[in-house]
Amino acid sequence: MGIIVQKFGGSSVADKEKLYNVANIITKSYDEGNKVVVVVSAQGKTTDGLVSKAKEITDNPFKREYDVLLSTGEQITISLLAMVLNKMGKKAVSFTGWQLPIITDNNYSNAKIKYIDKSRILEKLNEDYIVIIAGFQGIDENENITTLGRGGSDTTAVALAATLEADRCEIYTDVDGVFLTDPKIIKDVKKLDEISYEEMLELATAGAKVLHNRCVEIGKKRDVDIIVKSSLEEGTGGTVVKHQDNLEDMYISGIAKDNNIARITIIGVENKLGRTYKIFDLLAKENINIDIIVQPIGEHFEKDISFTISKENLKKTLEVLKKNIDIIGAKDVRYREDLCKISVVGVGMINNPGIAAKIFEALYENNINMHMITTSEIKISVLVNFEDADIAVKSIHDKFFL
Amino acid sequence: MGIIVQKFGGSSVADKEKLYNVANIITKSYDEGNKVVVVVSAQGKTTDGLVSKAKEITDNPFKREYDVLLSTGEQITISLLAMVLNKMGKKAVSFTGWQLPIITDNNYSNAKIKYIDKSRILEKLNEDYIVIIAGFQGIDENENITTLGRGGSDTTAVALAATLEADRCEIYTDVDGVFLTDPKIIKDVKKLDEISYEEMLELATAGAKVLHNRCVEIGKKRDVDIIVKSSLEEGTGGTVVKHQDNLEDMYISGIAKDNNIARITIIGVENKLGRTYKIFDLLAKENINIDIIVQPIGEHFEKDISFTISKENLKKTLEVLKKNIDIIGAKDVRYREDLCKISVVGVGMINNPGIAAKIFEALYENNINMHMITTSEIKISVLVNFEDADIAVKSIHDKFFL
Repeated sequence: MGIIVQKFGGSSVADKEKLYNVANIITKSYDEGNKVVVVVSAQGKTTDGLVSKAKEITDNPFKREYDVLLSTGEQITISLLAMVLNKMGKKAVSFTGWQLPIITDNNYSNAKIKYIDKSRILEKLNEDYIVIIAGFQGIDENENITTLGRGGSDTTAVALAATLEADRCEIYTDVDGVFLTDPKIIKDVKKLDEISYEEMLELATAGAKVLHNRCVEIGKKRDVDIIVKSSLEEGTGGTVVKHQDNLEDMYISGIAKDNNIARITIIGVENKLGRTYKIFDLLAKENINIDIIVQPIGEHFEKDISFTISKENLKKTLEVLKKNIDIIGAKDVRYREDLCKISVVGVGMINNPGIAAKIFEALYENNINMHMITTSEIKISVLVNFEDADIAVKSIHDKFFL
Repeated sequence: MGIIVQKFGGSSVADKEKLYNVANIITKSYDEGNKVVVVVSAQGKTTDGLVSKAKEITDNPFKREYDVLLSTGEQITISLLAMVLNKMGKKAVSFTGWQLPIITDNNYSNAKIKYIDKSRILEKLNEDYIVIIAGFQGIDENENITTLGRGGSDTTAVALAATLEADRCEIYTDVDGVFLTDPKIIKDVKKLDEISYEEMLELATAGAKVLHNRCVEIGKKRDVDIIVKSSLEEGTGGTVVKHQDNLEDMYISGIAKDNNIARITIIGVENKLGRTYKIFDLLAKENINIDIIVQPIGEHFEKDISFTISKENLKKTLEVLKKNIDIIGAKDVRYREDLCKISVVGVGMINNPGIAAKIFEALYENNINMHMITTSEIKISVLVNFEDADIAVKSIHDKFFL
């Protein structure tokens, strides 16, 4: 029989009852004859508790030590889940990131997986053990502890599925799959049975919180079927994220809302060759990811450059830019945190030029101001005021589906 | 300059304020030019919290997974202390047990240190870092996580001091050294400036909670000066545990009380060669340590054998003995948990035959019944009823020192 990787997030393993629920899902797969590898996150609010312990000391902890701290959360979960499975009479064994090891680069708090040694897992699977792995963590080549950043346990799970050539990777969450948009905004919104990696990637980057883009990227690169489903209810089988050949008849596959953005505007940048490069090179060196960039066509002596970043990078971004304002050759740096990004994703979009117009029409009809617009082959994103965001999602949804 | 190892227990690192207090002690030593290696325990009640998480699931967790769980406590402390020192402008770096590594046997929850790789510590000391090590933990030769059992962080500290050939090992605690007996029982009791390893060992085994006997054994074997002192008050310099040449003039160096004992009596053991061996061999195989043994002189067909153990081994001991009652050739196994062991320790004792008599006299004058008595070269222990224990300590103290 084949290998299945199952990943359970923090809310799915939050207490003893939840651990037993998860153990039942695992043993069901195991008793059906599968070899099961389980990846878990830290329990419930454990990580938040660790973060606030660090925050009590400093707003800016040395990242090496911060990762030593955060990685304890998943280690607690693996041992408790192994105990539950043992108690249920199953053979189960846990491994931390370093025990395999999972080797990453040394970009603390946002490390990327370079290599997973699968030998200990295969050895234990062959001895009929259920193997439980701590998500979110690894070590660099000097055996320093690293963590993978937001959505890190999903990334661990899909990377393991790829390494083990697993039949599939099941990501258990508190909703029964991927929906066209947030069911909290629009009731009875359609659940997708399947979605392509490309669309899922755009949705992930656009702020849909179901899957982190890094895990989808690995899935796409290594052709891992990722199944998103509910750990709490007997669902419809969730949503399969997979390679899709027949994309022609697809249209819009998601509308996402992202609150976690800040917009930076650099005022009065001299219109000289290399200025833009310089700015984004400075930010890249600090590992700050840039999302939407808007730069006017350079016809004047000066220009204003705007772009969006995640809120957690705001402080660092402002520091870097203000420290280097002379090098950049700019007059001022401004920012706004009260904006929201609405993204509409669909592989069919590029061949349906009317879609953008229809989106703008929906927003116009509801008096919603657009602050920035970007388009890619399969995505259109607009920035709107925070208070307009939910109406924006609903108006776009209704325009296309009612 | 030389290397100093400083160990801080759970109550000394319980919160942010305590961590700053500890960091001040560390930086003082560092600023005096010493190379400082710090060993810490889990914060305050952290370990208790982890234990109860496991207890919610099972009374008898698989020990491999239990150690995975418990070892997270110290990992949290090392990262937080490193952050505090960093915040204070010092270079500090943390290492877990596996990162050095500290290699132990695979006797989970009570593992013994076999070897410590000091290379990473020396490298960081040479770069002027303060090096912070997680106490209580190690890994076996297959990279499974192990913990060292009660007093494990003391053991880590002294083993590190031995391996690093440190000038001294400072054990910080909430009292200012080793006292003749528990200051909670007798106020203004004398603090010892120095004590030999042998006496400290007897006191540790006798239940004085200042130092665990395993750390004293390592100190003795490798000639490490161990200094016990307070982390909270500017004390008198604490107590030095060290090799002592001139033992002649010593007398009594401690009176200890141990509540954590259970007495087992095996009834009606056939008086045949090898029976006693068989019993203690069975217990040794389960890693159960035996303390006082009383076996009557074998003149009858049957005999009763009594011995004491730690309370936490009671359940297992009864299980082992009852399962093997036919092999042992006994009629019944009984136990009592309501006894206390009072021990009087002093290297001078053996040359002062009147001491035992004086102890018995003190107890007799206070109507205290003695249930078992054992004597070694430097220790006399008696079992008394739980409710008599404090009066016993006080009466012995007063007999000798008033």
